Amino acid sequence: MKMLIVYTYPNHNSLNYEFFQRVMEGSSDNPHITEIKVLDLYEEGFNPLLVFNEQKRRRDMHTDPGTEKYRKQITWADKIVFIYPIWWGRPPAMLMGYIDQLFASNFAYKDKKGHFPEGLLKGKSVVCVSTMKGPTFYPLFWLNNAHKILMKRVLFNFVGIKKVKFFEFGNMESPKGKQAKKLEKIYSYFKKVNN
Amino acid sequence: MKMLIVYTYPNHNSLNYEFFQRVMEGSSDNPHITEIKVLDLYEEGFNPLLVFNEQKRRRDMHTDPGTEKYRKQITWADKIVFIYPIWWGRPPAMLMGYIDQLFASNFAYKDKKGHFPEGLLKGKSVVCVSTMKGPTFYPLFWLNNAHKILMKRVLFNFVGIKKVKFFEFGNMESPKGKQAKKLEKIYSYFKKVNN
Repeated sequence: MKMLIVYTYPNHNSLNYEFFQRVMEGSSDNPHITEIKVLDLYEEGFNPLLVFNEQKRRRDMHTDPGTEKYRKQITWADKIVFIYPIWWGRPPAMLMGYIDQLFASNFAYKDKKGHFPEGLLKGKSVVCVSTMKGPTFYPLFWLNNAHKILMKRVLFNFVGIKKVKFFEFGNMESPKGKQAKKLEKIYSYFKKVNN
Repeated sequence: MKMLIVYTYPNHNSLNYEFFQRVMEGSSDNPHITEIKVLDLYEEGFNPLLVFNEQKRRRDMHTDPGTEKYRKQITWADKIVFIYPIWWGRPPAMLMGYIDQLFASNFAYKDKKGHFPEGLLKGKSVVCVSTMKGPTFYPLFWLNNAHKILMKRVLFNFVGIKKVKFFEFGNMESPKGKQAKKLEKIYSYFKKVNN
């Protein structure tokens, strides 16, 4: 199983980076995971802005040379792991911009006249590891599950990815957030996951 | 009433720009609106990436000189109008990045120990004019209203803005989308709105 990790946090001196490290450690100890690639969007200097105009057509986005490298990573991967904080109920602008550009028509899905579009990333799986300042129950009860709906129903399922696993860790800015336990949970998950 | 328009679309040869023009025309014909400022995020070259690290602290975001101009616009405005497309169930990364940076602690809200945070943008109102490829009922029934929840409940209400009006126009890439009627609706709304 080939795994791509997309890490989205402004710096490495952070709990998000600790989660990244535990994902790496667990995956390295997992015999099912044969190769790992890492895309650190901030360190990469990824430009999150989708631009289209008279010269650069939106319909050509799936062959844009500027994002070819990132499409190849997605094509290569069997499993994609996103690590990010929840800001204002959803991932940071950087990750939204990666999505705006990478999940392009004719790469991630295909419009079919008169039918529901066809997902082109079938067979892959996704894991989202996210951290929040607020409590863990907050997204579900207060936000109608908006984060998961946006990521799973609107995005991943639409492009054909049915297997989506979420970790939403709340209270992550509190000393009582049980961070060590949650980091351990992530290590254990990635050590064992086999599909 | 002083009005700030935040326009988020990659180019001006677009239906989104027509909506912007109708907002401008209606507002100009409205005696209650005395002044209008426009922030065209793409044309402005706004950098959507929130960065914080050892040198640039997150807690100082509300005094960041790089975004001071935009904070002043928000402080100045009685009403803020956001015009944007819905991509993957939510606004584009560019607008998410504007939010990540502008709605900072101690500018937009104030944490209160042991209490719910206090919104600091009380008294202002917001209008969201958004366009979608999918049908109009889609966000409500299929997406659990995720777009409105993220914008209204998570963001605007949190910072003290109680009055939030949405226009979600669906089927906007279809010739049967009744675009002219919807543009007219926007003109009429902005010609009359008085609070």
